[in-house]
Amino acid sequence: MPNSFGKNFTISTWGESHGAGVGVVIDGCPPNLPITADEIQVELDRRRPGQSDIVTPRKEEDRVEIISGIFEGKTTGTPIAMLVRNADHRSSAYSEMKDKFRPSHADFTYQSKFGIRDHAGGGRSSARETIGRVAAGAIAKKILASAGVEIRAFVTRIQDIAAPESALENFPAAADVEATAIRCPHGETAAKMIERIKAVRSEGDSVGGVIRCRVRGIPAGLGEPVFDRLEADLGKAMLSLPATKGFEVGSGFGGTLLKGSEHNDLFEVRDGKTRTVTNRSGGIQGGISNGEEIFFNVAFKPTATILQLQKTVDVQGNATELMGKGRHDACVLPRAVPIVEAMAALVLVDHWMRQNAQNGTFRF
Amino acid sequence: MPNSFGKNFTISTWGESHGAGVGVVIDGCPPNLPITADEIQVELDRRRPGQSDIVTPRKEEDRVEIISGIFEGKTTGTPIAMLVRNADHRSSAYSEMKDKFRPSHADFTYQSKFGIRDHAGGGRSSARETIGRVAAGAIAKKILASAGVEIRAFVTRIQDIAAPESALENFPAAADVEATAIRCPHGETAAKMIERIKAVRSEGDSVGGVIRCRVRGIPAGLGEPVFDRLEADLGKAMLSLPATKGFEVGSGFGGTLLKGSEHNDLFEVRDGKTRTVTNRSGGIQGGISNGEEIFFNVAFKPTATILQLQKTVDVQGNATELMGKGRHDACVLPRAVPIVEAMAALVLVDHWMRQNAQNGTFRF
Amino acid sequence: MPNSFGKNFTISTWGESHGAGVGVVIDGCPPNLPITADEIQVELDRRRPGQSDIVTPRKEEDRVEIISGIFEGKTTGTPIAMLVRNADHRSSAYSEMKDKFRPSHADFTYQSKFGIRDHAGGGRSSARETIGRVAAGAIAKKILASAGVEIRAFVTRIQDIAAPESALENFPAAADVEATAIRCPHGETAAKMIERIKAVRSEGDSVGGVIRCRVRGIPAGLGEPVFDRLEADLGKAMLSLPATKGFEVGSGFGGTLLKGSEHNDLFEVRDGKTRTVTNRSGGIQGGISNGEEIFFNVAFKPTATILQLQKTVDVQGNATELMGKGRHDACVLPRAVPIVEAMAALVLVDHWMRQNAQNGTFRF
Amino acid sequence: MPNSFGKNFTISTWGESHGAGVGVVIDGCPPNLPITADEIQVELDRRRPGQSDIVTPRKEEDRVEIISGIFEGKTTGTPIAMLVRNADHRSSAYSEMKDKFRPSHADFTYQSKFGIRDHAGGGRSSARETIGRVAAGAIAKKILASAGVEIRAFVTRIQDIAAPESALENFPAAADVEATAIRCPHGETAAKMIERIKAVRSEGDSVGGVIRCRVRGIPAGLGEPVFDRLEADLGKAMLSLPATKGFEVGSGFGGTLLKGSEHNDLFEVRDGKTRTVTNRSGGIQGGISNGEEIFFNVAFKPTATILQLQKTVDVQGNATELMGKGRHDACVLPRAVPIVEAMAALVLVDHWMRQNAQNGTFRF
Repeated sequence: MPNSFGKNFTISTWGESHGAGVGVVIDGCPPNLPITADEIQVELDRRRPGQSDIVTPRKEEDRVEIISGIFEGKTTGTPIAMLVRNADHRSSAYSEMKDKFRPSHADFTYQSKFGIRDHAGGGRSSARETIGRVAAGAIAKKILASAGVEIRAFVTRIQDIAAPESALENFPAAADVEATAIRCPHGETAAKMIERIKAVRSEGDSVGGVIRCRVRGIPAGLGEPVFDRLEADLGKAMLSLPATKGFEVGSGFGGTLLKGSEHNDLFEVRDGKTRTVTNRSGGIQGGISNGEEIFFNVAFKPTATILQLQKTVDVQGNATELMGKGRHDACVLPRAVPIVEAMAALVLVDHWMRQNAQNGTFRF
Repeated sequence: MPNSFGKNFTISTWGESHGAGVGVVIDGCPPNLPITADEIQVELDRRRPGQSDIVTPRKEEDRVEIISGIFEGKTTGTPIAMLVRNADHRSSAYSEMKDKFRPSHADFTYQSKFGIRDHAGGGRSSARETIGRVAAGAIAKKILASAGVEIRAFVTRIQDIAAPESALENFPAAADVEATAIRCPHGETAAKMIERIKAVRSEGDSVGGVIRCRVRGIPAGLGEPVFDRLEADLGKAMLSLPATKGFEVGSGFGGTLLKGSEHNDLFEVRDGKTRTVTNRSGGIQGGISNGEEIFFNVAFKPTATILQLQKTVDVQGNATELMGKGRHDACVLPRAVPIVEAMAALVLVDHWMRQNAQNGTFRF
Repeated sequence: MPNSFGKNFTISTWGESHGAGVGVVIDGCPPNLPITADEIQVELDRRRPGQSDIVTPRKEEDRVEIISGIFEGKTTGTPIAMLVRNADHRSSAYSEMKDKFRPSHADFTYQSKFGIRDHAGGGRSSARETIGRVAAGAIAKKILASAGVEIRAFVTRIQDIAAPESALENFPAAADVEATAIRCPHGETAAKMIERIKAVRSEGDSVGGVIRCRVRGIPAGLGEPVFDRLEADLGKAMLSLPATKGFEVGSGFGGTLLKGSEHNDLFEVRDGKTRTVTNRSGGIQGGISNGEEIFFNVAFKPTATILQLQKTVDVQGNATELMGKGRHDACVLPRAVPIVEAMAALVLVDHWMRQNAQNGTFRF
Repeated sequence: MPNSFGKNFTISTWGESHGAGVGVVIDGCPPNLPITADEIQVELDRRRPGQSDIVTPRKEEDRVEIISGIFEGKTTGTPIAMLVRNADHRSSAYSEMKDKFRPSHADFTYQSKFGIRDHAGGGRSSARETIGRVAAGAIAKKILASAGVEIRAFVTRIQDIAAPESALENFPAAADVEATAIRCPHGETAAKMIERIKAVRSEGDSVGGVIRCRVRGIPAGLGEPVFDRLEADLGKAMLSLPATKGFEVGSGFGGTLLKGSEHNDLFEVRDGKTRTVTNRSGGIQGGISNGEEIFFNVAFKPTATILQLQKTVDVQGNATELMGKGRHDACVLPRAVPIVEAMAALVLVDHWMRQNAQNGTFRF
């Protein structure tokens, strides 16, 4: 099931950019959770186009309809299907994409794999697919919130403009993240990032960067040894997002410069609990949460769609050129922030339920 | 099934460091593949202890026994179980680990998760678990080889000692990788790396670094859109290895410094085929292979076990100290090279079979 | 994923009887299959209410909308989501069901499991859920038809009225099955069955019976040894249908009366192929198809909803009574015929794709 | 993973009849369960050959070795691998089977599916594969016992010799089942059954029959709506056993003769709990346990191996004959009783853990 994610709290997404709509079904949601379409809409509004002057000006409301699984305001334990209709589908604006492969997009590989593709707006490979993830993630976030867990993603770097590490050490307030359109909690850096995005956009070009995500409140014991390590599933979740090229947890690539004696997280007793003095492990040891803050970075490449003439090849195998046009994000990171949070929430709820499964009832 | 990996070519591993043995069963292997225990042993010998003077001097032969699934020298399509007996099990050398949590190991988290743990040598969290992966990977590599696919992993950096990028651009020869104990194909750098490892080991300390993996010969079309993208599954595979902290594919984190116009891989016609001029995508676009070389980097932290006195906490929750002892790798990377190759092979065979499933017979 | 079925051709259903609608998403459908909503509608019309004078007179059109996965009349290999809106949802006609458990329905068990339930019309436990199965099955049937496979289910017994075995030995023509409202291909028996249903309905009572399904054209080699035997997956598929109480394949329960020498299917050479003389195996040996016709029987209990006063217990745990009312099927079998065919098709396509996965490309 | 069963408590079996051995690995077993090899051996001894004078006189001890997952007498939550070595493997006694397909066995279908097969003793299709199921089932049974659940299977009919239904209505004592070699708790019938088996055996022939299984102590709420209904998973489990041809739960095929008013299980308040007056549902409604006793029947065909000359076809496609020889069971049912119990236990533990997953921690 390549379009499903999670073992216990499982989401399946469907839909194309310019088809009838996009949607998701959640299978395995715990019952009796109070949830409304409005609460889900809040998260969708954080990812929708047109929300600020640095994202694509496309006008799509992305209103969610709950089809099933919620009865009188509460989850029933049965599948929760949610649907967002596409506003302007089957656009003729994409006719050139029918025949020419856009560089660094999925047009060529979809064609190679399936021998057919819905070319309009990228079809299934469009980032509109993530609408379903965000809708499902909103429910996962509410479940986690009920257990005292907070998830906060934020932009730390756009191209070479990075927030100072000192400003990123603590768990940022939601208000600080949402204060600017770029969703970097360090105001001064945020301003520079926004300026850069506007500059490259005016050239018809694009930029990428890095998003960090922090999670606090996860108890020790989530994650499975061996293959389904918590960092492996978080890594897969992030690398399944469009435009991602890298993932690192805790000390990450930088940690490889240290010696073991510098890198190890010593244990100490703090507030009567076993805690680590430092947190280079990023809250995960041996694939299992240790109760410390979980944090990781995700690299996003510059947007593949640029408003410039590029060499390419057409479906018939002839060299040609393609001029990018239309309304696109010159930088996907601000809209990717809620998506990263959604995926993190989905992984964590799923692992929590797996922990329930094995350790939930039988006591010997 | 947290101890299983893969959807069609599925491996399940079992075993603890000091139990009766470690093993693996492969479910779904194609039938009629000629394979011998000796061919599998070749890969196990690349990961076993005692193979050189920079890895742990522990003496374990790690001889594989094939229990099932191979008949008169060929796979039958039924489960292939393989077992490696542990040489010196239930050692008393680990008695201190029974009560004290080793820093940056999985002792505390296993105890938190399960309320019990096999402490001897790390039990299930020991890297001995990867024996099963390597044995299964040997079969996967042979399957891929039959289709003309080559996989080559190699060390590119130890702590701050990095091979020059110019020396890493091409697919290295196996002989160059295996020429030195560190498995870095650039001889000059390899010598420095070995020197560094010996130096830190003499201090009872440890180091980490980066392994790169290149794959050539994969046709366009492998990988699934959305969640089971090829890079997502490769990333999960690598992040499921002990001591890994990061994964990046193609241009990776560095690629975020480029603009879209600099980063995009333009298409061209080459030798009558649709090819990319550059390969910042790392052979994968939209989660699907595009026929170019696949490459990625994996970050390994410095070995957690160091022969120094470290502060820690005991099982009863009291602050204490632990002195590392025994025979350990001061650097896991040389032995991790065949493991990275094994995991890459497992992911690729699995996705190839998924492609078969959906596109194999029905033609419309 | 309790609401999903199949490993390669996977369907996930959602929706409640009186919610916004019911639907399904297919993940893994082969690309390039020409299919229209009208072709799917044909199968839905065979299961919809109001189609004859022996089924419930409820008026629901059950019009299917294809949301995704089909582009310009062909499948694209991406998820196919289909939605059927409910006509008269959130009916007040079911208010009594809110508090009282209907005997031999799922009200009590859903309440026990989830602590909450959508009581209107049975919510998720309503047979309306099977709409998604039939819609997905229509696509599976078309795939199989392209490979020369035919599936035919039909009613063989209603209560004690059974068609003569001699009339059931051959693969019946579709026209003979569809000739009567009861879908028994033996006209004389069909007339008696219809008469019986009308009689019990006039008493506010209900009846059950047996459906047989025959499949021809399946090549030898489908099905997996051990757990995922073809008959095990067919059995699970049928026993997952509402109101089913039994499943038997080939000689079934009756075959246990024979001796081995009477029961064994001897092999012979026929038309140059290895065939069995008899077919007590029902086309499956060792869990794998042998190329003969596959056939099995499914037992359906009498409809639980009867228009009579019955003793029951309310949600608060008090003894009470409940009077059945509304428009119901006095016998579910005629409408279950297309559902049985749909489930059989889903199992067979799934296993065909599994066979592709393991045996599709790698040749040694 | 065709050789795996269960979603949370997952078993994977491997091994061939005449290879090195057969085994199983359990993934997901709850930690801290005290269990010994001797406890597992008790169940294996109930299925092993040579245990009485009506089963095959082959001498195999079937001693289980625990390879992993149990530490100091308790489960650790990690994979439990168990191995039973084959006594006399690679026998030359099976040379004729190399070339000729045994009627109603899996020889022809394995050859068709895989293009290769381990012919010795039936290879993977041998009932020796069930050793792993019984070993894993022993652990599942102990888990259930800790929660007050009892499982009892027993023979109710051999060919046409059936125990009176009045003698089968209650949950039989283990001692009554084990009192005779046939494992029918009605002594008088048991004697006739044994006599029949000896008679057909002396003719070189074989017989089949029916096993019933009863489970008491399962709380209401286990089982998943829609596809993974408790009866669907029980049915699949039983139909995955060699030689099974049918499965029925509760009233089964016989229940189809009743009207709804006769068949419905009315609710009443008994001992302060909501109970059903009758139990035609077999303890399952809407796919979910209702707290009543669960019971079902399984049909086993007569053993395919008979010591008579039978027509068949060889691997080259020529008509030929095959004379059965060797030591075989003339009736598999007595040895199948512990296997049925094992599979029932595996399904029930798995569903219990699924219930934990969804309902275990999050309370709203």
